[in-house]
Amino acid sequence: MNPPVYFFTDFSSRGPYLGQMESAVLAVAPQARIINLMNDAPFANPRASACLLAALNDYLPENAVVVAVVDPGVGGSRKAICLNIGDRWYLGPDNGLLSLLVSNAGAENCSLAGLHESYMKAASASFHGRDVFAPVAGLLVNGQSPDTFPLPVDGMAGASWPGELAEVIYLDGFGNAMTGLRMRNLRDLQGVVVGGQLVKPAYTFSSVPAGALFCYENSLGLLEIAANGSNAGRILGLEIGSPVNPHISPGRSKNP
Amino acid sequence: MNPPVYFFTDFSSRGPYLGQMESAVLAVAPQARIINLMNDAPFANPRASACLLAALNDYLPENAVVVAVVDPGVGGSRKAICLNIGDRWYLGPDNGLLSLLVSNAGAENCSLAGLHESYMKAASASFHGRDVFAPVAGLLVNGQSPDTFPLPVDGMAGASWPGELAEVIYLDGFGNAMTGLRMRNLRDLQGVVVGGQLVKPAYTFSSVPAGALFCYENSLGLLEIAANGSNAGRILGLEIGSPVNPHISPGRSKNP
Amino acid sequence: MNPPVYFFTDFSSRGPYLGQMESAVLAVAPQARIINLMNDAPFANPRASACLLAALNDYLPENAVVVAVVDPGVGGSRKAICLNIGDRWYLGPDNGLLSLLVSNAGAENCSLAGLHESYMKAASASFHGRDVFAPVAGLLVNGQSPDTFPLPVDGMAGASWPGELAEVIYLDGFGNAMTGLRMRNLRDLQGVVVGGQLVKPAYTFSSVPAGALFCYENSLGLLEIAANGSNAGRILGLEIGSPVNPHISPGRSKNP
Repeated sequence: MNPPVYFFTDFSSRGPYLGQMESAVLAVAPQARIINLMNDAPFANPRASACLLAALNDYLPENAVVVAVVDPGVGGSRKAICLNIGDRWYLGPDNGLLSLLVSNAGAENCSLAGLHESYMKAASASFHGRDVFAPVAGLLVNGQSPDTFPLPVDGMAGASWPGELAEVIYLDGFGNAMTGLRMRNLRDLQGVVVGGQLVKPAYTFSSVPAGALFCYENSLGLLEIAANGSNAGRILGLEIGSPVNPHISPGRSKNP
Repeated sequence: MNPPVYFFTDFSSRGPYLGQMESAVLAVAPQARIINLMNDAPFANPRASACLLAALNDYLPENAVVVAVVDPGVGGSRKAICLNIGDRWYLGPDNGLLSLLVSNAGAENCSLAGLHESYMKAASASFHGRDVFAPVAGLLVNGQSPDTFPLPVDGMAGASWPGELAEVIYLDGFGNAMTGLRMRNLRDLQGVVVGGQLVKPAYTFSSVPAGALFCYENSLGLLEIAANGSNAGRILGLEIGSPVNPHISPGRSKNP
Repeated sequence: MNPPVYFFTDFSSRGPYLGQMESAVLAVAPQARIINLMNDAPFANPRASACLLAALNDYLPENAVVVAVVDPGVGGSRKAICLNIGDRWYLGPDNGLLSLLVSNAGAENCSLAGLHESYMKAASASFHGRDVFAPVAGLLVNGQSPDTFPLPVDGMAGASWPGELAEVIYLDGFGNAMTGLRMRNLRDLQGVVVGGQLVKPAYTFSSVPAGALFCYENSLGLLEIAANGSNAGRILGLEIGSPVNPHISPGRSKNP
């Protein structure tokens, strides 16, 4: 079976961007299977987007080809990179977006390369997703190797970023606020202070009264702030970057 | 040909939800064909969503596998069900969403089952679409039978719901307001009172002056309130649930 | 390889419209590959949409089947047409949407036909995308010829429209304003007056300070007004149809 191609971008589903990117993959690999994994990643925010992508990565198939584009710096001097971890490939700009994948996998298990500048020559200044990353994804689907040069993993942008982020990293269409904290590292969580309120944990939406705020482990394993049948982000005035302060039981460390 | 999989949800196209659900189907049935039929079904409203799904059902292929998720109660005690009518399969929560499919087909033509609790064990508390329904859809695409237990059709949530709903059940991006009434049951319709106004029937947009309100049989066979080149929902102050009162010619019954 | 089918519409991604159109193609050609190229084309605006479609056309594969629907007049007397240029097919209403494809290709290289009225008989009044154009796209994917009658290319709606439009034709999700002007025809551009301001050209986003307005050749070859990391449309108060006035170096013609 061909490896499936996943798009993770901050392009939104508006405009001709995703369709053209899909078309550019198919021009190289007509049999490719493409999945729009997420196209409203935190806009122009590689740090929050890196947290999201790292969480989503746990739910991708072993052989996925991931095209990840969050775009500050397009047309500038940032490198276009190609990261290999196990059987998975990740394509994207060297702006930190792929960095947490490396720290989670361990640098010794990763192989990093820069895409050869020939891929840049025919590229537009503003749409490397279509002109650089999608065609290379097509090559990878075909089992071919793109022209690259090796890069040191510890030289990646974002290489020194911590693995978690005590902030809101995404607000979904329902107003649920994902944070960059892994719930499994928050044993004995007593609550989180967010938007000026202490919010208590619960198992899920059905566990709390209608309208009640709670925090819980979302389906990606992240700490999420939600309200049963209501919009937590609006109630608490949250936006991407709002700080989240977890309270842990006394006598327990935050990361046991 | 493999049966195509249709997603009908209230998830919106934002966030990583649809992409992950697609990915979960492909993990079981890599060859599956997936169609996002509608992802802005009336939010947390199984009654209105059931009307929409029943209307859309007439336009699906004979062998469709439909994953329908409108989500109040996720993580609670509601059952996950699997409904078979003819060659079609429907997967979703037992919250009424699938109930009108049964009343339209006739209970004697339907077979209902609950998904075995083993499917729940590995599931997250909040994303049964990805963790329960999508994998089972993959099994059905592969021609396999999921592990189930039989359920009585007349015990479904929503089994006693009427087949039609004299309310606005959907407002599309243009401001057209679909109702839960079938136009074929409204012969000799004189107009509808909606948003405090009497709105007269017309054949289609081109039949009325620019800006004019009218009601008509939409492409799903439903009574719809629209305005030529304008936003009927905004003009009339409509939302999902707004009542719609059809006026029929004297001497005719509403449902002949 | 089967020809891929591209959807270009003003339907938005809301509602059941795109999913049903996709389903209608698959009912005829189950193996068809469908790409949502763009579904927020300028609403009810065939003139601006025609400019966008002509620009996107340069990035489609040679054998594309394009279903283009921008909808004023649906259910009225406009014809449903089928246009052939090289190995590409275009299906859509005769309201001007396909006209610039003809003027760009040269009328002598184009073949135009009307779809036989039998395709209309089973059609709903409001959804020709699903009921007329999608099934015919399926036929073309299958290598079959739909029933048509020949039409003169110079009788198409929009046949006399100019090839460019000195207006904003699209505002994307980031607030970037595409214009209907081809940058290659604007050599020695000094700037554009738009929204009451003179905006200077730059190579791309990274070339200007944060927040700065600039104009540039976008990834479709069009003149676009943007702001680095900010929303140009909002800053300048732009909407679709806002006039754009390019300033060219003295001594040069606008269209050399």
